[in-house]
Amino acid sequence: MSLRAIGIFDSGVGGLTVLKAIRQELPLESLVYLGDTARVPYGTKSPPTVERYALQAAAFLLAQQVKMVVVACNTASSVALPALQRALPVPVVGVIEPGAAGAVETSRSGRIGVIGTEATIASAAYPQAIRALRQDAEVYSAACPLFVPLAEEGWAEHAVARLTAQEYLAPLLQQRVDTLVLGCTHYPLLRRTLEAILPPEVRLVDSARQTALQVRRLLGPQTLAQRGDGSCRFFVTDEPARFVRVGGAFLGEALTEVQRVELQCALDGSGAVLAQVAP
Amino acid sequence: MSLRAIGIFDSGVGGLTVLKAIRQELPLESLVYLGDTARVPYGTKSPPTVERYALQAAAFLLAQQVKMVVVACNTASSVALPALQRALPVPVVGVIEPGAAGAVETSRSGRIGVIGTEATIASAAYPQAIRALRQDAEVYSAACPLFVPLAEEGWAEHAVARLTAQEYLAPLLQQRVDTLVLGCTHYPLLRRTLEAILPPEVRLVDSARQTALQVRRLLGPQTLAQRGDGSCRFFVTDEPARFVRVGGAFLGEALTEVQRVELQCALDGSGAVLAQVAP
Repeated sequence: MSLRAIGIFDSGVGGLTVLKAIRQELPLESLVYLGDTARVPYGTKSPPTVERYALQAAAFLLAQQVKMVVVACNTASSVALPALQRALPVPVVGVIEPGAAGAVETSRSGRIGVIGTEATIASAAYPQAIRALRQDAEVYSAACPLFVPLAEEGWAEHAVARLTAQEYLAPLLQQRVDTLVLGCTHYPLLRRTLEAILPPEVRLVDSARQTALQVRRLLGPQTLAQRGDGSCRFFVTDEPARFVRVGGAFLGEALTEVQRVELQCALDGSGAVLAQVAP
Repeated sequence: MSLRAIGIFDSGVGGLTVLKAIRQELPLESLVYLGDTARVPYGTKSPPTVERYALQAAAFLLAQQVKMVVVACNTASSVALPALQRALPVPVVGVIEPGAAGAVETSRSGRIGVIGTEATIASAAYPQAIRALRQDAEVYSAACPLFVPLAEEGWAEHAVARLTAQEYLAPLLQQRVDTLVLGCTHYPLLRRTLEAILPPEVRLVDSARQTALQVRRLLGPQTLAQRGDGSCRFFVTDEPARFVRVGGAFLGEALTEVQRVELQCALDGSGAVLAQVAP
């Protein structure tokens, strides 16, 4: 059991920030990463479509014999986690609950801001998860659709990013939040830009490390790797070139051995259909 | 024959600017539009993936008995037109050649700028098409990946769009181009922002009207609709809500009766496979 890998998926490169945190926390674990780059982004798509894609991605990871699936995509975690947990025979960890827990730990006033993609914000998954942990929390949300393309363009610290962030964050600042959840795996790249705009008392919460801690807790001593070399295998659904180029900035090191795969098209989310793609 | 519709496809809403121009030029024709919103955008994806998507989209239109397919997407036109023309039994019109013809007609100096998505610019389809018409043309290209998300965010005339455009266009302006091709169907929405930055002598070329004229020429008197009400049917691959909301700005009027469809997944571009999806 302990030799089986942890599976991680995202719509593209963003989830590499989560992979990195898991690797830091659990250096012996083997990791399998899937980026659905042929259909990226998820954040502008509808919940049923994101759910369908998430089930296909998870089915691919299952076929790699993973012992757990980490949904390293806020959009997919926001809208598809219940469907994934119903369909998969292994534990499924999303990034919303860990991020919400981090926010509640961090906030003193209980006034918490959340930024994310259109789909993540529309789902209200963060406010729900935060209020489940702290009933009196006041949660203010803002969709920031331009942050993902800005990060992918390498403009995370460009004047354009700063101007964009000023516009998106203005309503949250008016609410005097003391904590801001980076509810999209691309956003940690904009950390410096955000810090330059926010008052010094506002603290940023990034789900990546919280998610890694949750993975460790859920695996438990029985299923934690006792030995291993922390190998990572990377799969993408489009040609690897762009993923390799853009992903390096997210991982903080060069990506090697990235393989293109085709996902099954006919999955509908029932356990029976998922079983068909296992090897 | 004349009662069959013209099929138009794009990765999303952008091609509605082309549909609008065709409708103005040919008001009697019935039109069928497909936006592949479940996989939008194409502009950041690899040529093989865009070609596969384009063949699937075209196959869907064929199944609607269209008499012609208009590829109202610069990225798909740049990388998939030969494959489409080989595979389809009806005429296929892309937006690159009409845009190139418009640029050559417009330019006096022969110094022509082209802006587009990463994939369109990487394909070099515009420089090739322009030089085929005017051998001594000097073509300068710039990818502008943030223009599509800016237009979709409704920020086409925002200060952020202006700052972004200044950065992207600076190298083209240094080359003293007298003509700028808007090589992406989203870019006409940024026309005012671009005009505010460009010297007054630079003229903008938008493929939409040129493409409509090309459609008229290719149809010829035999296949032009002699009567008809210019009905439009709209199909998308994701849920229609976002397409309806964002698309209104592109079409200049409210979108109604948009239907979601599932594209076949197993197409590989051979004529035999295309035939399977015909009704």
